[in-house]
Amino acid sequence: MTNGVQQALALLGQVLVEPGDVVAVEDPGYPPARRAFEAARATVVPVPVDEHGIVVERLPQQAAAVYVTPAHQFPLGVRMSLARRTALLEWADAAGAAVVEDDYDTDFRYGARPIDPLHVLDRSGRVVYVGSFSKSMLPTLRVGYCVAPADLLDALRRARFVADWHGPTATQLALAGFIDEGRLATHVRRMRREYELRRDRISMVLDRVFRPHLRPIPTAAGLHLAVTCDGVTHDTVAGWLAECAKDGVALQAIGDFALGDVAPGIMFGFGGIPLDRIDEGLRRLRRVIGSS
Amino acid sequence: MTNGVQQALALLGQVLVEPGDVVAVEDPGYPPARRAFEAARATVVPVPVDEHGIVVERLPQQAAAVYVTPAHQFPLGVRMSLARRTALLEWADAAGAAVVEDDYDTDFRYGARPIDPLHVLDRSGRVVYVGSFSKSMLPTLRVGYCVAPADLLDALRRARFVADWHGPTATQLALAGFIDEGRLATHVRRMRREYELRRDRISMVLDRVFRPHLRPIPTAAGLHLAVTCDGVTHDTVAGWLAECAKDGVALQAIGDFALGDVAPGIMFGFGGIPLDRIDEGLRRLRRVIGSS
Repeated sequence: MTNGVQQALALLGQVLVEPGDVVAVEDPGYPPARRAFEAARATVVPVPVDEHGIVVERLPQQAAAVYVTPAHQFPLGVRMSLARRTALLEWADAAGAAVVEDDYDTDFRYGARPIDPLHVLDRSGRVVYVGSFSKSMLPTLRVGYCVAPADLLDALRRARFVADWHGPTATQLALAGFIDEGRLATHVRRMRREYELRRDRISMVLDRVFRPHLRPIPTAAGLHLAVTCDGVTHDTVAGWLAECAKDGVALQAIGDFALGDVAPGIMFGFGGIPLDRIDEGLRRLRRVIGSS
Repeated sequence: MTNGVQQALALLGQVLVEPGDVVAVEDPGYPPARRAFEAARATVVPVPVDEHGIVVERLPQQAAAVYVTPAHQFPLGVRMSLARRTALLEWADAAGAAVVEDDYDTDFRYGARPIDPLHVLDRSGRVVYVGSFSKSMLPTLRVGYCVAPADLLDALRRARFVADWHGPTATQLALAGFIDEGRLATHVRRMRREYELRRDRISMVLDRVFRPHLRPIPTAAGLHLAVTCDGVTHDTVAGWLAECAKDGVALQAIGDFALGDVAPGIMFGFGGIPLDRIDEGLRRLRRVIGSS
């Protein structure tokens, strides 16, 4: 158990990385993960993502670790294909790399049949699986977890002892009770229906009103979806979102999550917006784009 | 707010120490603090402690930091004198060192008038004060704190973001309410009376039954007291305590907290033992010593 996914990533940085080691990350990707490896003095190498997930042939030949979000890529929302997962594990064997698999929000899956996570497909003990209750329950709960190969456990326990000993016991006991009584499952089922309605509403309005400016990237899970913005620059998108922010609509530019050359786009997070306020937010975005 | 004192120490290690920097620690001292600085690749230098606290003239000339427990030295229980506090701050100015002041258990003070903590005496912005609710409330709460000079705050916030973002909000809000309603103060008052009874009982039995083998070190605060064991070796003390452990009596050897040459001794923690079981535990210790 860790204080959210972030602590798992920070501890893994300490345990997996020697200063100067290469760590590959998805680009665009999740900046706090990158920072955890940078704090361990890794050389972070961005690797492109396509509609099947991280582009394995673009990975470096040697690396201490690769950080991926296969179930629901952050921020693009794509799911890593089975073929790509297999290729990634083969690369990891050849490169001698650990694979950090962050499954941060796929308690919420909409229709699509699940693909086995990397840590299930793994035959070499290379995959560390991290996740949290931040999305299924509350971010402020600060309860995450890390399922690590046996040969990493001692080092992780030592690093955790130095970092803060352990998490708050009362929170963990309360959560364990909540799970044992079946109440987390009920909560997730109810919220999945709610989140699916939000996702469907955003997708429908994007399809109907925003084409061809914004092209939704198909997504079947989680609490956000992304669009590609064709024919405009990152600066244009940043300008739109700055205007939206003034108007009370918080959206994030894909460019903000990128180290290298990625397509301009927007990420729509819908974990915090009620269904009946979605149209209004998107109308404001439409107005901003229309007047630009 | 930190996850206990330990997280504050780990973050301070990251922020204050470059690999190879010297960090001075009390000897005997608190091993988890030492480990936090070692994890930051500090060269840890042990410095003796006498009845007035850390021996300032034995401190190294240059250091990135010194870690001290002035209010109730861990594990010896002595209190740092005002003269020694002043000398320590003068040394810190000359050495260019930060002073990490760990005030881990002096919510419980028995009679003695308080001496200003280093962070109050500090005129140069060198002192970082850390503490926690582990002793005044519960160790499993994992709520500590760190009062740092302004010029360290940005670096500490960045390190905290990487480490785990922040602590669990619900715990902090509950604790804030508990404090605001005056219930923590009531709890501390009640527990202080209880702990003082335990300390007095242990001191009395030690004085009456164990002289001249064990010589109590005067202490006026906290949840433990220590004795010096005259005329025996560390190995002898370790042997006694191993026998006691078999008999269900958990005591710690001062030698276990030492890096250098310290007097053999025993630390008696009384945070967890009810008053009416103290005599029985000490009888068992007496039996072990008598038969050795």
